[in-house]
Amino acid sequence: MDFVLSQRISEGDNVLLFLDRKRTYLVKVESGKDFHTHKGFVKLGELLGKEFGARIVSSMGVGFVALKPSLRDYVFKMQRRTQISYPKDIALILMFSGTGSGSRVVEAGTGTGALTTALAFHVKPDGQVYSYEVRQEFAELALKNLRRAGLSEFVTIKNLDITQGIEEDAVDAVVLDMATPWLVVPHTYAALKGSGIIVSFSPTIEQVIKTVEALEGDGFVDIQTVESLLRRMQVIRGKTRPETLMTGHTGYITFGRKAFKELLNG
Amino acid sequence: MDFVLSQRISEGDNVLLFLDRKRTYLVKVESGKDFHTHKGFVKLGELLGKEFGARIVSSMGVGFVALKPSLRDYVFKMQRRTQISYPKDIALILMFSGTGSGSRVVEAGTGTGALTTALAFHVKPDGQVYSYEVRQEFAELALKNLRRAGLSEFVTIKNLDITQGIEEDAVDAVVLDMATPWLVVPHTYAALKGSGIIVSFSPTIEQVIKTVEALEGDGFVDIQTVESLLRRMQVIRGKTRPETLMTGHTGYITFGRKAFKELLNG
Amino acid sequence: MDFVLSQRISEGDNVLLFLDRKRTYLVKVESGKDFHTHKGFVKLGELLGKEFGARIVSSMGVGFVALKPSLRDYVFKMQRRTQISYPKDIALILMFSGTGSGSRVVEAGTGTGALTTALAFHVKPDGQVYSYEVRQEFAELALKNLRRAGLSEFVTIKNLDITQGIEEDAVDAVVLDMATPWLVVPHTYAALKGSGIIVSFSPTIEQVIKTVEALEGDGFVDIQTVESLLRRMQVIRGKTRPETLMTGHTGYITFGRKAFKELLNG
Amino acid sequence: MDFVLSQRISEGDNVLLFLDRKRTYLVKVESGKDFHTHKGFVKLGELLGKEFGARIVSSMGVGFVALKPSLRDYVFKMQRRTQISYPKDIALILMFSGTGSGSRVVEAGTGTGALTTALAFHVKPDGQVYSYEVRQEFAELALKNLRRAGLSEFVTIKNLDITQGIEEDAVDAVVLDMATPWLVVPHTYAALKGSGIIVSFSPTIEQVIKTVEALEGDGFVDIQTVESLLRRMQVIRGKTRPETLMTGHTGYITFGRKAFKELLNG
Repeated sequence: MDFVLSQRISEGDNVLLFLDRKRTYLVKVESGKDFHTHKGFVKLGELLGKEFGARIVSSMGVGFVALKPSLRDYVFKMQRRTQISYPKDIALILMFSGTGSGSRVVEAGTGTGALTTALAFHVKPDGQVYSYEVRQEFAELALKNLRRAGLSEFVTIKNLDITQGIEEDAVDAVVLDMATPWLVVPHTYAALKGSGIIVSFSPTIEQVIKTVEALEGDGFVDIQTVESLLRRMQVIRGKTRPETLMTGHTGYITFGRKAFKELLNG
Repeated sequence: MDFVLSQRISEGDNVLLFLDRKRTYLVKVESGKDFHTHKGFVKLGELLGKEFGARIVSSMGVGFVALKPSLRDYVFKMQRRTQISYPKDIALILMFSGTGSGSRVVEAGTGTGALTTALAFHVKPDGQVYSYEVRQEFAELALKNLRRAGLSEFVTIKNLDITQGIEEDAVDAVVLDMATPWLVVPHTYAALKGSGIIVSFSPTIEQVIKTVEALEGDGFVDIQTVESLLRRMQVIRGKTRPETLMTGHTGYITFGRKAFKELLNG
Repeated sequence: MDFVLSQRISEGDNVLLFLDRKRTYLVKVESGKDFHTHKGFVKLGELLGKEFGARIVSSMGVGFVALKPSLRDYVFKMQRRTQISYPKDIALILMFSGTGSGSRVVEAGTGTGALTTALAFHVKPDGQVYSYEVRQEFAELALKNLRRAGLSEFVTIKNLDITQGIEEDAVDAVVLDMATPWLVVPHTYAALKGSGIIVSFSPTIEQVIKTVEALEGDGFVDIQTVESLLRRMQVIRGKTRPETLMTGHTGYITFGRKAFKELLNG
Repeated sequence: MDFVLSQRISEGDNVLLFLDRKRTYLVKVESGKDFHTHKGFVKLGELLGKEFGARIVSSMGVGFVALKPSLRDYVFKMQRRTQISYPKDIALILMFSGTGSGSRVVEAGTGTGALTTALAFHVKPDGQVYSYEVRQEFAELALKNLRRAGLSEFVTIKNLDITQGIEEDAVDAVVLDMATPWLVVPHTYAALKGSGIIVSFSPTIEQVIKTVEALEGDGFVDIQTVESLLRRMQVIRGKTRPETLMTGHTGYITFGRKAFKELLNG
């Protein structure tokens, strides 16, 4: 996700080796290094100086495409462990939260850093993500993932328990993907600018109910909860249809905006 | 969508007057101006110097909140005429297209500028959106909408027919929301960087089939088509349930990435 | 829903006058009677002696088809008032409940009789539906609707509060579409045969949770809750797509089977 | 699915041994026979004379419930091989087709007999299902399955290719679950009573388009295509949510009713 003008592949670049939709490999290009797949090995050095999008053939004669990893690829590769954040949900969270270039956003919990990466990608070059993660090993894993994606400078990972408080103030948005979001609502009210946005992602309906009640109790407005379903289509002339398998549920997304409790505050 | 540090409402600022989810009004604050609703009028001048998020009472004693308009609000307010772009789809298009700060993106057609606004919001401060719109009146309407959102400097609106060609080259992404996207696929191949991304939004399955076949014919890889469904939840303890009415379909989103046709191009 | 061999339309028969999907009229054929629509009037007597499926032209020259009303038509026409039962849900309730020719089924509440009609249609000629309805006016309306559908002999409507008890025993199934199904679970256990089935339809998730807990408490097994979504397709070559509007939620269907509480009962 | 008054389990009865939702076993009770599971064996003879719904303990001390198999169980157990018919779709097909006690229904193809079983269950005791199956081995398998369910007397399986013609006439409904339903539309028109119903189940959208066009060409009215989605809920207080995995698509259901082509036929 470095945005140099040249699209030539250089030493140390990340490349997404693409065989088909289910077989993609995120690798770092180093001269002299081979990448082994069950379809033969690819000499990564051959990619140096080529453009992204180049086709390369493995030792078994199988073609791969050397794609430039996108945000979606980084997010997808990161989510493998905890499986809680899905690109479809991250896309909506970004839209709902209003996160853009220059935004200051608080996030919890960091987890493997999938959502953190997406937030960091969108706040650059002038914004910052403050990401709370109480589990030390996840904080470290997320930092490693952010470094690989070239986005660590836009994130401050904090190995703290956000239910104990938020250290920042006047932030644009607070994004929660954690077990007890309702406990963080009062801290969120204190940390947000007026009109600032909270977005919370929760798998269960009971979490949603508690969070909505906490938001109502603190005077948030425009409170909405939605759920997104993504259907993949098989598009082959004469055989076009939605795919048989589908993810039935990941979680609910709850949204609210800070209104001051008193009249004509400020 | 200006990001000055101060959140105080100033002369000329846009404010989203919020009554409830279905009654929000995007207004420009001017001293001495009243805004009339069927719940009485609001003296906009009273908001000057207050913080966004302030509560204000109408002449009939009804409370409104003066929210800072977010990207989603601008998009939502713009879509009223053609109804073709929905925030849920825009969110996915942004994620799939990999659009971020600094991206150079071609778009067609502009329409009322809802998707254009979202792209512009995410390419700033260093990127640019080149938006093709063959209908003069929509090109003008979109420009007006982009100015209101403070994003017109990040967009070049071109009153041209994109099926005749794309003038830019080495762009990061091409985003199509138009009747005949398959006619633009060869131009897209020419305009994209290697590994660049195409995203196409189409309401009908026949459009999708033609577009996917055109992409396959031009050597694009990682071709996927998805459809997103959004369910709103009514969250009230003891009465929690998905809402009765739902938008059943807006359109399919087709995605692909440019691979060079020849081996080890570049 | 009388199944005489002749399909000739006779005096007193119900006919569904079909103009298009959204404009259908369930009328009783009487010689000398006109049926008025905004597309002109139809002389119903002209249908006498014709076959179902005949086309007839109104005074304004608009064609109608005289269809034989099916179960689905009766159900659809009955649901107008309370809107709680939808054909898609009734179809699943019938399948889950195992209702078939000869079944003895308890139902509550009767409402307008839409679900009652469907149950009655399937238990005939030897079964019986015992339908509890505490509101006198609905009990009467349902009876009227059942008579029109020719199914009243297969139903015993009881103007009683089912939360006070079920008078029948050794029934095959108990089907609940009412506000407090969990209060009826103990009565259901008493009324059902061993291995008998309960099906409950509820709009809210809190109703579902209470009902499932009551079923678990009474030793029911194979407890499942599902929700059905129906999407209509617009099928026109070149314009094929799901329809824009969709019913997002009607209710959850919870299912369970009576197991005896003690070992090797019987 | 015999409906004798006694619910006592007798020699030769089918029993559904229920361990949990995913582990159920459809077995025939014979004295002296053991049924082996990985949770130990069950002495089936112990069930003789007990009521359905009785609990029984395996040699490893694990409890099973001896349920009376319902239509849904037979359908579910039969679908394992071809996986094309799902209970949710069968439920809708039954509702749309108007099949009830006494109906005469043509079906193709028989397959393993899952849909055939459901139709037979609902036409008894006076109706009949004429089921066309061109593949000999499926015709035999379906007959075996129907015998096990006690429903073979209500079905005539015909080892014929329905695209060559339908031998019956004046039938109430024609139900198609086959690769080329549009080829059967003219035969369907000939075989149906006036106002009779066709229901066709197809996985792909191209099949649907061809079938709808054939129906329109033959003057059918009230043509509708729908798709059903079923979501399972995990209902556990504090952890309630839709299940993660879901079947995203089985097929589209197309419906139509025969109108005579000429005016006032009959």
